[in-house]
Amino acid sequence: MALDNNPTGPRPPRWSRLLPLYGDLRGRERGALAQDLLAGTITAILLIPQALAYALLAGLPPEVGLYASIVPPLVYALLGTSRTLAVGPVAVAAVMVSAALTPYAGGDPDKYLTGALILSALVGLLLLGLGLLRLGWLTAFISHPVLSGFTTGAAIFIVCTQLPALTGIAASRDAGLFELLAVIGRSLPELNPAAAAFGLTTVAALLLARGPLLRVLIGAGLARATAAIVVRTAPLVLVILAILCAGALDAQQRWGLAIVGGVPSGLPRPQLGFVTAPGWLELLPSAALIALIGYVESISVAKALAFRRREKIDPDQELRALGVTNIAAACAGAMPVAGGFARSMVNFEAGARTQLAAIFTAFWVALAALLFAGLLHDLPKAVLAAIIVVAVWQLIDLEGLRHTWRYDRGDGTAQAATLIGVLALGIELGLSIGVGLALLLFLYRTSRPHIAVVGRIAGTEHFRNIHRHVVETWPQLLLVRIDENLYFANTPRVESELQNLVVDRAGLEAVVLILSGVAYIDASALEMLENLYTSLGEAGVELHLAEVKGPVLDQLRGSALFERLHPDRCHISTERAVETLTACA
Amino acid sequence: MALDNNPTGPRPPRWSRLLPLYGDLRGRERGALAQDLLAGTITAILLIPQALAYALLAGLPPEVGLYASIVPPLVYALLGTSRTLAVGPVAVAAVMVSAALTPYAGGDPDKYLTGALILSALVGLLLLGLGLLRLGWLTAFISHPVLSGFTTGAAIFIVCTQLPALTGIAASRDAGLFELLAVIGRSLPELNPAAAAFGLTTVAALLLARGPLLRVLIGAGLARATAAIVVRTAPLVLVILAILCAGALDAQQRWGLAIVGGVPSGLPRPQLGFVTAPGWLELLPSAALIALIGYVESISVAKALAFRRREKIDPDQELRALGVTNIAAACAGAMPVAGGFARSMVNFEAGARTQLAAIFTAFWVALAALLFAGLLHDLPKAVLAAIIVVAVWQLIDLEGLRHTWRYDRGDGTAQAATLIGVLALGIELGLSIGVGLALLLFLYRTSRPHIAVVGRIAGTEHFRNIHRHVVETWPQLLLVRIDENLYFANTPRVESELQNLVVDRAGLEAVVLILSGVAYIDASALEMLENLYTSLGEAGVELHLAEVKGPVLDQLRGSALFERLHPDRCHISTERAVETLTACA
Repeated sequence: MALDNNPTGPRPPRWSRLLPLYGDLRGRERGALAQDLLAGTITAILLIPQALAYALLAGLPPEVGLYASIVPPLVYALLGTSRTLAVGPVAVAAVMVSAALTPYAGGDPDKYLTGALILSALVGLLLLGLGLLRLGWLTAFISHPVLSGFTTGAAIFIVCTQLPALTGIAASRDAGLFELLAVIGRSLPELNPAAAAFGLTTVAALLLARGPLLRVLIGAGLARATAAIVVRTAPLVLVILAILCAGALDAQQRWGLAIVGGVPSGLPRPQLGFVTAPGWLELLPSAALIALIGYVESISVAKALAFRRREKIDPDQELRALGVTNIAAACAGAMPVAGGFARSMVNFEAGARTQLAAIFTAFWVALAALLFAGLLHDLPKAVLAAIIVVAVWQLIDLEGLRHTWRYDRGDGTAQAATLIGVLALGIELGLSIGVGLALLLFLYRTSRPHIAVVGRIAGTEHFRNIHRHVVETWPQLLLVRIDENLYFANTPRVESELQNLVVDRAGLEAVVLILSGVAYIDASALEMLENLYTSLGEAGVELHLAEVKGPVLDQLRGSALFERLHPDRCHISTERAVETLTACA
Repeated sequence: MALDNNPTGPRPPRWSRLLPLYGDLRGRERGALAQDLLAGTITAILLIPQALAYALLAGLPPEVGLYASIVPPLVYALLGTSRTLAVGPVAVAAVMVSAALTPYAGGDPDKYLTGALILSALVGLLLLGLGLLRLGWLTAFISHPVLSGFTTGAAIFIVCTQLPALTGIAASRDAGLFELLAVIGRSLPELNPAAAAFGLTTVAALLLARGPLLRVLIGAGLARATAAIVVRTAPLVLVILAILCAGALDAQQRWGLAIVGGVPSGLPRPQLGFVTAPGWLELLPSAALIALIGYVESISVAKALAFRRREKIDPDQELRALGVTNIAAACAGAMPVAGGFARSMVNFEAGARTQLAAIFTAFWVALAALLFAGLLHDLPKAVLAAIIVVAVWQLIDLEGLRHTWRYDRGDGTAQAATLIGVLALGIELGLSIGVGLALLLFLYRTSRPHIAVVGRIAGTEHFRNIHRHVVETWPQLLLVRIDENLYFANTPRVESELQNLVVDRAGLEAVVLILSGVAYIDASALEMLENLYTSLGEAGVELHLAEVKGPVLDQLRGSALFERLHPDRCHISTERAVETLTACA
């Protein structure tokens, strides 16, 4: 089943595969350093407010978000095969951390923080294990429609969870979506005007920056890429303005505005206390889902960006790199990390050439954590909630749902079920339902292969479906084309269909199975074909094969079926089979 | 994906599909009644000792086996589409009932019996549900190798569980296999000589009947089929002889021989007490496994026998028929039933033409239960154990394991894992592991499709793998044939492989994807192809398709990809694509 052409030439030496950064740096162009510095700086400007916001989203102290933006990018820079992936906290993983830890910690903040580190470590171990065991193909079992439905559902869910912080309404973290909306609706008169003012102003300013400001800048003569980068500084600018404003007005004391409060200055310190904490097994299912989503998101961004510059991504090395990165996150006291879509795009478009850009980003975040963490004290939480809402709003894609549904009912069903499942039953259950349903639909499809009775288009050697074309047929011959690999999953159906086709034909002398679309015959299917050979024989009908592919013939060699059919009843082409069988008659 | 040719002509009227027996009887030949009477009688002679033995194997009173041989065959006769399937207790289902009920009942015989009826009802409801929801394809996910490994493992396990009864050694029912063998080894000196004499004599007599006696009868001029039928009476003859012998010698009193004891005379009476008993949810997983195995065994026997006479089996109707049959079994106080392989073969070979044969069988068993049940009192349990051992011994197929392993490593691994799992971890866990492993291997295979770079065999219009054939290629063209339907499961790998192929080619102008082996493109794959189109375009490479099948083209219609590629970049044949692209260059 493996790809039998590997035209990649000689593989790079082993240490270069294990530390891709080394090879990338040796091969880099002149001027790349300056470009990496610029891109790293711009990414850091985007990352700092995101790091604070996603820590809040995960229910963790702000410094956990900063730590997740320092050590993990450095580790990934050494090990990852993507040159531009910006690793750090991401919104969807953050809300999954919150969903996992709220029931786990039961209101104990220390347990909650320890749980976050266990999650990081588990995510890392799972990804590293998959990478070492070369089981990366397992992650292929989340389909695009399920991922899209999940992302939209999670984004809607995240927006709703931020409404209380955005408006200063009190609501418990572990409320379901509908309960939350009910609480917000009931408590709307009691909203905190200061929080609402800060929150809604920030939302408005961010939206203005994205749309009108961008157009004004481009109209003023800025290059589109430069204008886009300038606009990306808006969150950091708004954070600084909000801190100054809230501090000057003493908004916490005066109006009871919720602020971030004390954030310890300094760099992340090694944490290993979580290793002996309880709850590893309990958090394993959640960690598996976070690992799956984090990896799938990261690899798709990495692949898309790499291909634009014709660079290669090694999915197994990515698994190992993201695994070690998350283990390092745990040891640095940080939440689970992944490659962020928007952030990586900014990094790429700002001109990042190698992972040195990520190292510069980490440097700036570390500097901020060291020097400016104390200044975050007055930052209103409503401003972070606003940054989250505007960031995830773009992930909501209802048009995609309609699009998928139009293209394929099965995929559309899986996408809608995931979306509705996430909203009605929660993040984890919704995702599990979607993945399970997509797999079931996939199994259903493979269990019903396309089987066509064919005949010859007169005057040619082309054989086509008798129901789609006007073709020649022969009463003593049944020509059947099977359009799918023969596995145990579709064997019973193929057997029934073939038997039904034969039962209805009086005067039949031979059945020719055309295997042009069959690249694989497993043991169950082989047994079915051997039984078919025997039972057709008892009924006086010969079984012939045509257009058997090379690999299938290789595998059949040595089986009883092969000895009976080869070479007289194995025909290179359908035409040859028909010639032989009509000549005999 | 559905079969688009249905050459079965007009369907029979609805009531005839619901009650296949009616149609079968209307269409039957002259003389069929006499043949059915003969076949039914012979099957009853085989069935009566089996019914008693399999009840013992399931840990149930003997009459439960008899009841399972009266009502269920009658119900199946009305509803089933197989004319010759002999429904009743089967060995593998019996040992699965024992495995499920021993922990459930905890030594309480009343609870044990109630649990058996709940199992029958659950098996029936599950099968009926699958049939009504048309989910029969779900049962396709047990592969032949897993079924074979399971059957061999279960047979070895059954033989071991019968060793105590065969030799009169005491051992607890819920011991694991290794524990059981240890107990037997330790207690061998304490065996009961009378039990061992009865048991081993019966085994010897049954083996003599199968081999030497059969040859003698054929040598004496009997037709092979007749001789085989005469030999099949051996178990009943031995049961009668053993009863007479044990009674005459007063073996129970004199040597402590274990006997069947009092069996109530009479017909099964309606039982509904189990409906309100607890444990339905607890027994559901076991019932699901029994239903799966029972149905798969039944349908494969039914299909094989039907095809030999060119009759048809409707798998969905079989699900419904076996479902109602098992529900009826529960209501008649009987254990779960299925179509037995050996018994159905005997029925078929004895000349059964319609399900009237099964009705005659049920009549004889009912007569025996009514008149002769009391006579079973003195039947030594060792004789029943001997009948079980000889019956299941033939299910052990270690040669099949070697055979599968030689044909396909993946299938061989699944088969061996199931066999070892059943022996080491128990019936249910072993089966579950096997089914899960086979599915994983299946998913693994589909996630790695065969992709070939092809070139033209000079002077022809045939395009073949560049690594297997000497072919013409063009530096500006990459011709790639994909040999599997494009699903989300293989999309990431196909994408990576295509990107790697493109990255390595300088001077590339066009990529042609040859989709002759692709019958389906799902939404994930469509998105991948659209991304590929865009990113190839950015790199100055055109994407073309060739040999797209009709159904695929139908589905693509309306997608962005279709609008971009059709008709200029969709080529009927690879040759046409090459002509167009080399002409442009």
